[in-house]
Amino acid sequence: MSAQDMTPPASGTATPTAKSLTKAGIAHNLESNAEKPQLDASKLKISLTSAPRDPPAAGSEELKKMRTCTDHMITARWTLEDGWEAPELKAYGPLSIMPTASVLHYATECFEGLKLYHGEDGKLRLFRVRRNCERLRRSAARISLPDFPAEQLENLIKKLCATDGPKWLPNKGGFLYLRPTFIGTDPGLGVQVPKEALLYVIIAVFPDWSDPRNLPAASAVNPDLSEAVTKAQGLKLLASKEDSIRAWPGGFGYAKLGANYGPSLVGQGEARARGYDQILWLFGNNASVTEAGASNFFVVWKTKEGQQQLITAPLEDNLILEGVTRASVLQIAQERLSAENASKYNAESLEVVERKFTMQEILDAYQDGRLVEAFAAGTAFFVAPVGLIGWKQHELEIPMVEGKTGVYARLVRSWLSDIMYGKEQHEWGVTVDEA
Amino acid sequence: MSAQDMTPPASGTATPTAKSLTKAGIAHNLESNAEKPQLDASKLKISLTSAPRDPPAAGSEELKKMRTCTDHMITARWTLEDGWEAPELKAYGPLSIMPTASVLHYATECFEGLKLYHGEDGKLRLFRVRRNCERLRRSAARISLPDFPAEQLENLIKKLCATDGPKWLPNKGGFLYLRPTFIGTDPGLGVQVPKEALLYVIIAVFPDWSDPRNLPAASAVNPDLSEAVTKAQGLKLLASKEDSIRAWPGGFGYAKLGANYGPSLVGQGEARARGYDQILWLFGNNASVTEAGASNFFVVWKTKEGQQQLITAPLEDNLILEGVTRASVLQIAQERLSAENASKYNAESLEVVERKFTMQEILDAYQDGRLVEAFAAGTAFFVAPVGLIGWKQHELEIPMVEGKTGVYARLVRSWLSDIMYGKEQHEWGVTVDEA
Repeated sequence: MSAQDMTPPASGTATPTAKSLTKAGIAHNLESNAEKPQLDASKLKISLTSAPRDPPAAGSEELKKMRTCTDHMITARWTLEDGWEAPELKAYGPLSIMPTASVLHYATECFEGLKLYHGEDGKLRLFRVRRNCERLRRSAARISLPDFPAEQLENLIKKLCATDGPKWLPNKGGFLYLRPTFIGTDPGLGVQVPKEALLYVIIAVFPDWSDPRNLPAASAVNPDLSEAVTKAQGLKLLASKEDSIRAWPGGFGYAKLGANYGPSLVGQGEARARGYDQILWLFGNNASVTEAGASNFFVVWKTKEGQQQLITAPLEDNLILEGVTRASVLQIAQERLSAENASKYNAESLEVVERKFTMQEILDAYQDGRLVEAFAAGTAFFVAPVGLIGWKQHELEIPMVEGKTGVYARLVRSWLSDIMYGKEQHEWGVTVDEA
Repeated sequence: MSAQDMTPPASGTATPTAKSLTKAGIAHNLESNAEKPQLDASKLKISLTSAPRDPPAAGSEELKKMRTCTDHMITARWTLEDGWEAPELKAYGPLSIMPTASVLHYATECFEGLKLYHGEDGKLRLFRVRRNCERLRRSAARISLPDFPAEQLENLIKKLCATDGPKWLPNKGGFLYLRPTFIGTDPGLGVQVPKEALLYVIIAVFPDWSDPRNLPAASAVNPDLSEAVTKAQGLKLLASKEDSIRAWPGGFGYAKLGANYGPSLVGQGEARARGYDQILWLFGNNASVTEAGASNFFVVWKTKEGQQQLITAPLEDNLILEGVTRASVLQIAQERLSAENASKYNAESLEVVERKFTMQEILDAYQDGRLVEAFAAGTAFFVAPVGLIGWKQHELEIPMVEGKTGVYARLVRSWLSDIMYGKEQHEWGVTVDEA
C-alpha cells in the first residue's frame, strides 16, 4: 500500500537496514548522535536581514491573520552522516523543501510553543524555557528525529529573542510567541527514520486580545445554538464522542507531535459549528477526562465529604501532554493554596490531586452543587476559565465570579503572570539579555 | 500548551470562527468547495523543464538512495478564498514552504502510492487508479483538507505519466512509483483547518530489485539474532507489543495520513534491530491482527473442521487501510479460487473471509499444522510472502514452497501482475496514452 516497504522485497538477502538501527529507535537516535558533531549554539552564524520589516499595527488585518513572524529565524541542519551543522541566525523566510521530504509524507515533525514576555521592569523573560527544550527532545525521540542538548536549544532561543525582542516587543505587558520546530527533511521516499532533519525557531506576532481593535467582528447569531451556548461566558467545551479519540495508551498523546493535532481538526470544527470553542477529549468506556483542545484541563470541586480539590488527569498512562503550564499550576497551587498558606490570599485551601476522573464525576459534582470551577491551562490559552461543558444531553453551566472567571483560575493566573512579567522575582522567569 | 488556542481567549465575544465551519469539518470541506472553482485538469498549464536529467543507471548510488524523481511534477494550489487554481505541470524541484505552514506543525497531510507499469505489450498502465484518487479524497476529509473530483486527479496523474513515462520507464516489465501528496500550506500558526493547501504529484524512480546490481550489500551477520531469524526467507514480521499501538477505534488508521507513519518508525527500528523487516501490528487485549508494516496482512489456514480459508482483517472498525491491492486480492481469490474454478489453476479451493482474527488463532493453526501460508499485500511490497512471525517467545516459521513463496501468494501475485503488465486484458489495468 505504502512506501514503508521500499526496502527490497523479501528476496532472501540479509535485512539490509538492520545494521544501521539499534535495539530501539529512540536509543538509536541518542547513540548515533553521540559520535557526531552536536548542536552547538556557540557556533551560531549570524547574518542579519537586509530588509527589516515594520511590526504590524494593532488592529491591522496582517496582525489578525497571525501569519507574521519577526525579522529573523534560527535554523540548524542535521544529517545522519555528519551530525549537526553550525546553526544559523538569518532573515525569516520560506524554507526550500523537497517534494519527497519525510515531513510532508510521514509527519516526522514535532514542535514547542512558548512566549517571550516584556516585563513591567523592562526586561524580556521566558518562562521555564528549559522544560520546553527537554520536552522537544522527548517528542523528537518519539517521532525518530535526532537528539540534541537542551541547553544548546535554550541558548539559540535566547539569542533569537535578544536579536528580535527589543524591536518586535517594545511594550511592557506584551508578549511574542516562539515556535521551535523540528522536521524530517530526508528526501528519500521510503518509510524510514529520517537521515536529514531541520530544527528551526521562529517568533510569531500575535494580537493582544485585550486591545478591542484586535478582536474579530462578532459572528452573526446562529439560531441553531442552544440558549446555554449563546449566553455562556468563558471557554465552552464540547465533550468528544465515543467515535472520536485523541490519544490512546501505546500511542503518542504525551508528545508534541504534529500527528496529535491535524487529526483533531475535524472534531474542533464540529465543536465550533455548535458554538463551542474546543473539544474536551474523553477516553475509554468510562469517559475519563483528558485534555481540553490542546490544553490541560483542571476542575475544582468539593468531594462528597466536603474536601475541596483541584484535580487534573495524570501523566502516567502517556495519554496527555506534560504541559509546562500544567506543572506550574499544580506546583504553585500546592504551595500557595495549602491549609497553611491559602488564607494569605483570602482563599479557601484545596488539595491538589492528579488522578483519572470521569465526566460522570463532574456531572455528579455539578448536580450536587459541589462543582466550584473549571479551567484550561496551556501556553497560548494561558489559564482560561471554562464557562460551559456540553456532554451528551447535558449542558453544564460552570460557576464563574461575575461571569468572568473562577476564584482559583484568577489566583493562579495572576501568580504565574506576575512571574512571567517580572512583578515577582522567581526562578521560573528566565531573563533574556539584550543582544 | 499549544497554538490550538490562538483564537482569542474566552472574552465573551461570539465564537469568531463558528461562521466559517459547518456541522462537521468533513461536510464543511465538501460544501465550501462546491461554490468555488474546482480542481480542473483541462486547465493544466504546462511548462516543460529546460534541464532534463538522465535517469540513474542500474546499480548507481543515486538509484539506491531512492531520492530521484522524474523531470516533472504536477502542482495544484487551493485557497479557501478562491478555490482551486489552474494546476501546473512543471520542472520537478523543491517546494517553497513558509516555516509556519500547517503541514510542518500539525501534520495536515495525506498521500497515495501507486505504480506506473510498462507492459509486455509496450503500453504504460496504471492499476485501478481511480481507487487511489477516491481514497485520497477520504484521507483529505479526515485531515481537514479540501475535496476535489477524483476524475480530475486521475487525469492529472495520467498527463504526468504520459509526459515522463516514455523517457523514464523505457523497459518492458519495469515500473515507476507515483506519489500524489496533499499538504496544508496555510501560513497561519493557529491550530485550525488550513485555508491554503497544495496538491502535488511526483514520480519516483526505484531500483528494480530483481537486478542484483541494485541490491544493497549484505549486512554483517549479527550474532545476537536468533537462528530462526537468521535462516528465515521472505518477509519477517515482529508482532507489536502491548505498549505500541498503530491505530485504534475512533482514530484514523483507515486514512493514508502522515500521522499514521512517522509514529510507527520507532517500532519499525526496533523490529529491524532484531533482524525482522516490519512490525505486525496487533490490537486490543486479545491481540487481534491488523496490518503488517503499512501493508495489509493475509493468512491461509485450514480450520479445525478442515475448511481452507484466506483470511484478512475487516474494514468495519476503521483500524486498517482500505488497500487497493487488498481489495484486488480478495476479489480475485473469490473469483478464481472458488470451489468451481480453483482446479483450473491446479489449486485447492478456499473460502475468502474478512473478520477479526487473533495471534493466538494463528499460533494454534501453526502448532496444529493447519497454517498454510501468510503474505503481506500493498502497492510497493506488492504480494510479499511471509516467512517468519515473532510473537512473545514464539517464532512461527511459516511454510513456503522451495523457501520462496506460498502457492496462493504466487498465484495471486501472477494474476495481478499479468493485469498490471497487460498480459491479461482487464478493466483494472488502465492504459496511459502517450503525450
